[in-house]
Amino acid sequence: VPKVPITVAIGDGIGPEIMSQTLRVLEAAGAALAPEFIEVGEAVYRAGNSSGIGPEAWESLKRTRVLLKAPITTPLGGGYKSLNVTLRKTLGLYANVRPCRSLHPAVATRHPDLDVVIIRENEEDLYAGIEHQQTPDVVQCLKLVSRSGCEKIVRFAFEYARRHGRRRITCMTKDNIMKLTDGLFHRVFMEIGRQYPDIAQDHQIIDIGAARLADTPERYDVVVTMNLYGDIISDIVAQLTGSVGLAGSSNVGDQGALFEAIHGSAPDIAGQNIANPSGLLQAAVLMLGHLGQHEVAARIHNAWLCALEDGLHTADIYRAGTSRTKVSTTEFADAVIARL
Amino acid sequence: VPKVPITVAIGDGIGPEIMSQTLRVLEAAGAALAPEFIEVGEAVYRAGNSSGIGPEAWESLKRTRVLLKAPITTPLGGGYKSLNVTLRKTLGLYANVRPCRSLHPAVATRHPDLDVVIIRENEEDLYAGIEHQQTPDVVQCLKLVSRSGCEKIVRFAFEYARRHGRRRITCMTKDNIMKLTDGLFHRVFMEIGRQYPDIAQDHQIIDIGAARLADTPERYDVVVTMNLYGDIISDIVAQLTGSVGLAGSSNVGDQGALFEAIHGSAPDIAGQNIANPSGLLQAAVLMLGHLGQHEVAARIHNAWLCALEDGLHTADIYRAGTSRTKVSTTEFADAVIARL
Ligand SMILES: CC(C)[C@H](C(=O)O)[C@@H](O)C(=O)O
Ligand SMILES: CC(C)[C@H](C(=O)O)[C@@H](O)C(=O)O
Repeated sequence: VPKVPITVAIGDGIGPEIMSQTLRVLEAAGAALAPEFIEVGEAVYRAGNSSGIGPEAWESLKRTRVLLKAPITTPLGGGYKSLNVTLRKTLGLYANVRPCRSLHPAVATRHPDLDVVIIRENEEDLYAGIEHQQTPDVVQCLKLVSRSGCEKIVRFAFEYARRHGRRRITCMTKDNIMKLTDGLFHRVFMEIGRQYPDIAQDHQIIDIGAARLADTPERYDVVVTMNLYGDIISDIVAQLTGSVGLAGSSNVGDQGALFEAIHGSAPDIAGQNIANPSGLLQAAVLMLGHLGQHEVAARIHNAWLCALEDGLHTADIYRAGTSRTKVSTTEFADAVIARL
Repeated sequence: VPKVPITVAIGDGIGPEIMSQTLRVLEAAGAALAPEFIEVGEAVYRAGNSSGIGPEAWESLKRTRVLLKAPITTPLGGGYKSLNVTLRKTLGLYANVRPCRSLHPAVATRHPDLDVVIIRENEEDLYAGIEHQQTPDVVQCLKLVSRSGCEKIVRFAFEYARRHGRRRITCMTKDNIMKLTDGLFHRVFMEIGRQYPDIAQDHQIIDIGAARLADTPERYDVVVTMNLYGDIISDIVAQLTGSVGLAGSSNVGDQGALFEAIHGSAPDIAGQNIANPSGLLQAAVLMLGHLGQHEVAARIHNAWLCALEDGLHTADIYRAGTSRTKVSTTEFADAVIARL
């Protein structure tokens, strides 16, 4: 099988640890991949490039159109642009797909039947990053929403639901306050929804929607929402499966795709070999699916599930009672490899 | 005791039902109040006033400076302005205080030790309601944040914590993306925090903060945050105590105060006499405290707790097992009155 070139960013904080273990698993499973490593993130920022990414990295991305990315640390303070946002916008990755599923009884959770996919608009909203100092006292940020952007993500969500046999899509916005912007998203949802009579549809205001999602996530199927709301509710739902460290995500567009864990770079636990590599491993599984390597994807997914079912748990999901052994990052990867 | 004039808005949807029962309890408890009723909300909107409030209502508010308000329905679509936002801004109610506390074992909850106060900035952020159509395809909404606004709410939060013997304040923003706006809020939090060394302080990015709050709310004490984030997380935390229908809130400023339930007008169950009047009743208790009528406030609060402990539960909190009798809105009010 010819190896498919992919771009790999090992990230900051816990990034390098979880990436090296993820790559070990991919290799052991026989994934047909030829990784090209790029340098992005903290080191690049610190070297004076405020975008966190240089021309060689862009070259690689142009070639491969596929990025497997560990979490990045953007230094706080003005001047530094979020690399995540730059990548999503430059590559036109308009859909951020975050499947969250409980692994009961393998991983302890209060919500054994949770199985929700958050589909998050990924290019617009407050993430446009347009901020100004208006007066010495007042700053502002622009929330931008386009009809074409809403149409793309809403249509994507309905097509995703059909393709994956999902029954219901819930749209969440705050259009009782933001009638033009959130109102547009909601209206487009209703318009396009008419073309999908096979899929049940409803709308909830984001405050009460997030509350119900946090309380009884098992009642939801697919949720489609705007960028910032999607950011918040996807962390919530992933956490309720047992840990925000379990979920991978795909960022997809017409010109490429980016796969990443949904958690951050967790600098507080970096270098300790205790982070959970599952989120990035799940991102890699989504990537293999995207590349058509379904068999390897399934093999890794199953080995991962077996390791979790055998009670081999990193600290974030370790619970006396359900777990058997508290394992390190590398031990967990060993366990997955042993079960391939 | 001279009766204190207050303004009362009976609201839309379930508003009239829960307000009439709340007023019955207040009267039976001997609260020294002289309610002035104003007409606001749906009927006023429908009559062609796009603000939902007329000059007579403003007159009453100017006189009393205290409003007890049931939820309002703002018609969807352009043109109608949110009455909630108008009231908060016109009356300068910069702090929205939402105490959420589990009533275990009286009310079933997965989080028996939950006791969190959300302090929400109440005048700025995307709630400024400044929206434009930029091009045929693009709409925008302006997020506005002022240093003076941040200082007011952050100082309020620290003073509140001191006054109520609270130990820790967590600030939540998304300043890894919105460096100017959310960054300002975070920076002001750190600056003012230095003057309160007796109170523990930390900051969390809103996505992971909301996830942890939804997962383990018992780890939080006071949370101070921006308007929209506060809207979302206060519904989440209230819901985790057992129902979003249990929590009252105070909106306070230098020129007046507004007390309301945190839930909406729930038109789907309006007129059925099944809504939980607890949120509005708790708002009334907060109002009595504000007016210095502490004894009556405590009496109502205790009677309310007793009714809940006796297992008399409206449909939203009724659970076979913990609950004894499913009661209607009026029956619940009767039960509170019987226990005064
Ligand atoms: C790191 C940050 C820019 C990013 C976001 O807000 O989108 C992250 O939280 C995520 O959800 O992928
Ligand atoms: C009704 C709505 C305008 C309001 C808000 O968003 O503030 C409500 O959700 C609340 O939390 O009080």
